[in-house]
Parts: sequence; C-alpha cells; structure tokens
Amino acid sequence: MEELGKRAMAGDVRAASRLIRNMEDNMPGTEAAIKHIFPFTGKAHVIGITGSPGAGKSTLTDEMIASYRNKDKTVGVMAVDPTSPFTGGALLGDRIRMQRHAEDTGVFVRSMATRGAMGGLSKAVGDGIHVLDVMGKDVIIVETVGVGQQEVEIINHAHTIIVVLVPGMGDEVQALKAGLMEIADIFVINKADREGAARLHKETLSMLQMGKFENGWIPPIVSVESVSEPISFAQSVGVLTDKIDEHYQYLIKSNILATRSHRKATAEIYESLRAAILAPILDDLAANGELELMVQKIMKRELDPYSLAELVAEKYLISHDCLKV
Amino acid sequence: MEELGKRAMAGDVRAASRLIRNMEDNMPGTEAAIKHIFPFTGKAHVIGITGSPGAGKSTLTDEMIASYRNKDKTVGVMAVDPTSPFTGGALLGDRIRMQRHAEDTGVFVRSMATRGAMGGLSKAVGDGIHVLDVMGKDVIIVETVGVGQQEVEIINHAHTIIVVLVPGMGDEVQALKAGLMEIADIFVINKADREGAARLHKETLSMLQMGKFENGWIPPIVSVESVSEPISFAQSVGVLTDKIDEHYQYLIKSNILATRSHRKATAEIYESLRAAILAPILDDLAANGELELMVQKIMKRELDPYSLAELVAEKYLISHDCLKV
Repeated sequence: MEELGKRAMAGDVRAASRLIRNMEDNMPGTEAAIKHIFPFTGKAHVIGITGSPGAGKSTLTDEMIASYRNKDKTVGVMAVDPTSPFTGGALLGDRIRMQRHAEDTGVFVRSMATRGAMGGLSKAVGDGIHVLDVMGKDVIIVETVGVGQQEVEIINHAHTIIVVLVPGMGDEVQALKAGLMEIADIFVINKADREGAARLHKETLSMLQMGKFENGWIPPIVSVESVSEPISFAQSVGVLTDKIDEHYQYLIKSNILATRSHRKATAEIYESLRAAILAPILDDLAANGELELMVQKIMKRELDPYSLAELVAEKYLISHDCLKV
Repeated sequence: MEELGKRAMAGDVRAASRLIRNMEDNMPGTEAAIKHIFPFTGKAHVIGITGSPGAGKSTLTDEMIASYRNKDKTVGVMAVDPTSPFTGGALLGDRIRMQRHAEDTGVFVRSMATRGAMGGLSKAVGDGIHVLDVMGKDVIIVETVGVGQQEVEIINHAHTIIVVLVPGMGDEVQALKAGLMEIADIFVINKADREGAARLHKETLSMLQMGKFENGWIPPIVSVESVSEPISFAQSVGVLTDKIDEHYQYLIKSNILATRSHRKATAEIYESLRAAILAPILDDLAANGELELMVQKIMKRELDPYSLAELVAEKYLISHDCLKV
C-alpha cells in the first residue's frame, strides 16, 4: 500500500485510483500510504462545493474544470455521492462524470461513496485529498450534497467553500440554505435563467446583510446560467473561478488559511483516533464473540448501552487519574 | 438527570422536554437517565420517515399524527433537522411544527438538530426515542432527511421505514431514491396530484420488481395527495397508517422484529462506545494541552494523523494480545 502511495506521488494515475478505491473501501494498510505521502501534502487549494440535491453541482464542477484548465492549472476532483450503506458504491460514478476531460492528463476525477455503518467517509475523503495533492494538482474540488452532518464535516476539508443555490426549490430547501449560510465563502446561484432567480438573489443578499463578517470577507454571490445570453455558462463560471482565486489570496494575506488548516488538522486527528482506537476494540469484541453477547443483553434489557460501554472502557482503557472513565 | 428520567417516565412533559434538549446538547449526565429508564423501553412501534428535502415529510407526519389519534393511539414525534454545526439548533423548530396537535396530551413533538463536529446525533435520537417510549407513546415517528450517512444511521432506529417520494424532482434526486430503495418498507408518493406522479409510480414499481424480497414483504406504494378529490389527504394517509400497522404485524409474526432490534442494539452499542471511550480521551488530550500540540505537528507536517493516533492508542489502550494496536 505504501508502494501505491509512492507511485501515486510519482504521477501514476492507476496507482492513485487504486489507492483511493482502497480508502473508500476502508481497506487495511491505506494508513501506510498516507504516512508516506503526508509530509508532501498541503500544497493544493482545496475547494468545497455543496448544495441541495438537484442544484446542478456536477455540471458546475465540470465547467470549473474547464475554466481552471484555461488558466493552466491542473485539477483534481473528489465527488462524494450519497448512497445507501447497504449496497455502497458511488451512484453517479466516475464514468458518467466529466467525460469531456477524460483524455486530459491535467485532470483527475474520482467519486467516493460511503460503506458500512461505522462512518469514516470524511476520513476517506480527507485521505483522498492528500493523494490528489501529492499528485501535484493545483486545485482540488470536493463536491458533496450539503445536507447531513457528515457532509458538512467533509466540506470542512476545504479552504474555500462554495454553496450552490438554485431558484424554485421549496421552503425546506430554503431552510437548508440557512444552515449552509455560515459556512459559505462564495454563493453561486445556478440555473440563474430560471424563474425566481432575482428573488433568490435578493433573499440571499438580505441574509448576508444580517450576517456578521468580522474578518473582512463578505461572501460574494455569483450567478451562473447555462442557457441564455448574453453571458455564456463558461464566462460566468470564469467569473466564479476568479472569485475563488481572490478568496484564496485573501485567506493567505489575512492568515485565515492557518485557521482553516488548524480546523482541518483537528478533524483529521479525530478521524484517525476513531480508526485507531474504536475500530480495533470493536473488531476485538466481535472476534471473541463478546459483541454478540452484548447485543443480546441490550435486546433483553438486561443491560443498558451506557453501563455496557463503561465496562468496555474499563477493560480496554488504561486508567488515568485525569481520565474519568 | 436521573430524576428527569424518572419524571419523564411518570408522564411529566416538561421533564421529558428538558431531558431531550440535554441529549441534543450532549450534556453530561443524560446517560444516567437512560440507565434508569432503559429496562422499561422497547414497547413502542418506531416508524422512520425519510426522503429528500421538499418531499413534504412534515405535512405527512402531521396528518399521520391525526390518523393515529383517530385510532386512539398516542404519538411521539422526533423530527431531525439538518443544520449547520456552527450554530446548532433546529431550523424548523418544534413551535412551527404540527401546531394543531399542541393541545393534545396524547401527542408529543420534539425536534433535534446536531451540534459540534463529533457527531453523536444518531445517539441523541436513539436516546430521545427511549424517552418517548417510556412516556408510553404507542407510536414514535422519527422524521429525517434521507441523504447523508448519519441520516441513514438515524433511520435504523426504526422498525418500519417509510420513504417519501415526490414527482417532478431532478435526476440527482432520483439517484438518491435508488440509495433509499433498499431500506424502504413502504413507499409514499406524496403530492400525487402533481404532474409526473403516474410515471414516478411506474418507475418505483419497476425498481421494486427488480429487487429481491426474500422474507415475504414486498414494499407497497401508497399515493397521497393534499388537494384533489375524490380521496382526501386524511383518507389516503389513513390507508398509509393501515399499511404501517400491517407491516408491524408482519414484523412480529415473521420474527423480523427481532432482527431489527438486533440491528438497533448493535448501533446503540457502537454509539455508546464512541461516547464512553473516544470522547473522554479527546477531552483528556484537550485538557492537558496535548491536542493543540498534536494539531500543530499535523499542520507543520512533522507527524501524520495515523502515526499520531497510534501513539495515542499506545498511551490509552491496554495492550491486549488479541488487540492489534
């Protein structure tokens, strides 16, 4: 696996693909690859794109790739697909995404979906970003549906966060928008040729006016549209990537980039601890049959989950004076 | 906190509300309440309702409450709102939900949102269900947006899972639907008076025909609509609650209820272990300043997250022969 890491770093696209697929599958040993490549990470500008289902994030990402290629920047994309924990597997898949960039060696697109009930998607995405980073991609776009808690965790791997809004969605979607409001560095009003776009722009603006932006960056609203003239989709997405670059320069100058890196590092520590501590305990309990006995006791109400967890902690944790378990 | 548990079990609505709010806030001590009430749980029929944003889940839940009240059943509702981890707090809120049932003591509605980056929403929802259960509610409805991984975990607390579909959503939403396909016990086509309802019904049916249903329950599709005649919204939701009751009887007869309880117990063990093992380690590391040092080392690339997690595991975990850490 470490070998895959080395080869990915040397630009081997197939090795990188396999490594990312292994991360998605939570295969043992991917940590060895990360250990190897980690010192060389942290060079790319990571852009997060989020928004409701149907907001047109994939189409936008596709056009952003083109825009960055026009600026001679290489691009990596990590598309996170919401999926069932029962089948696993990316629903939309790499194949149907961004076909037109398939021959371009400056572009590398991968999708990721979650498997199993134990979470870990955010960890896998974080690790995948490290792979794209050491492959030398200048810009890494992470695309995810911005609804659940875990999806927001994923987006926290990014330096610049784009929230995509679209006219004509229901009230509940507007509420979601409110939840995404505070994490946005840039708003995109997609499908801006649709009815209701002007109203959405106005609403977003008034929400922004109520917000506090202490550190000097007021999130701009960029409207993009795919059908009507006079501004083409490519042109309006060009305006967007300019704004994104502007935000990155702002992050560097204001030293907020360090704050974001701090947040990212904290998230990575939490995720690696979950993998290094909780997962082996669960594996151990499952292997010696104790987990099944515990499940039976819970089902029969002979023991509650918290008393049980305390017993497990007693068995596995070194008793520190300062650690109250 | 144990006192709150006792009072909630005695039917004290204010105590129950406070307890659930404390669970949502991840306040220390809520475990004591669960320990107290846990032996008395497991009586209610827990129904999960999920679907895309804008599918009309709240309106449907509201009408389901009315339908169950007509059948002389008491109802508890736990509405999970997607929200930002920065502000926390339910966006839609208890207040604007299901207003017409506010005076009915047989109905208890609470919403829950997630706070902080460490997850735990599914644990809080599971604990909240226990509270509603010992309050004596016959039916507990858990409503959540069915997009993210954590939301699917939440829905696993339910015995019967309803997936709400709605005509006229985009392709991406259809893909989401595919992800939700396997967890559904009953499909609801909401807003069935809208254009495209017949096509959606046909598509869902053909997806079902491709599926394998080994244990004898083929998920029915129930169409409900709020505007047109001859069947009123109340009547069509009545058909739905009949189907839900039928599913519950099926679960009991086929002994699948035991399988679902097994799944639920496993999820609860995982969540309580996370709370009892990982959280105190993180608190301990934060309290003595080590966490900040670790973050600095990660940011400077002096150490990678996985080597760091191994060091932490070495410090806190008892070295078991069978446990490879």
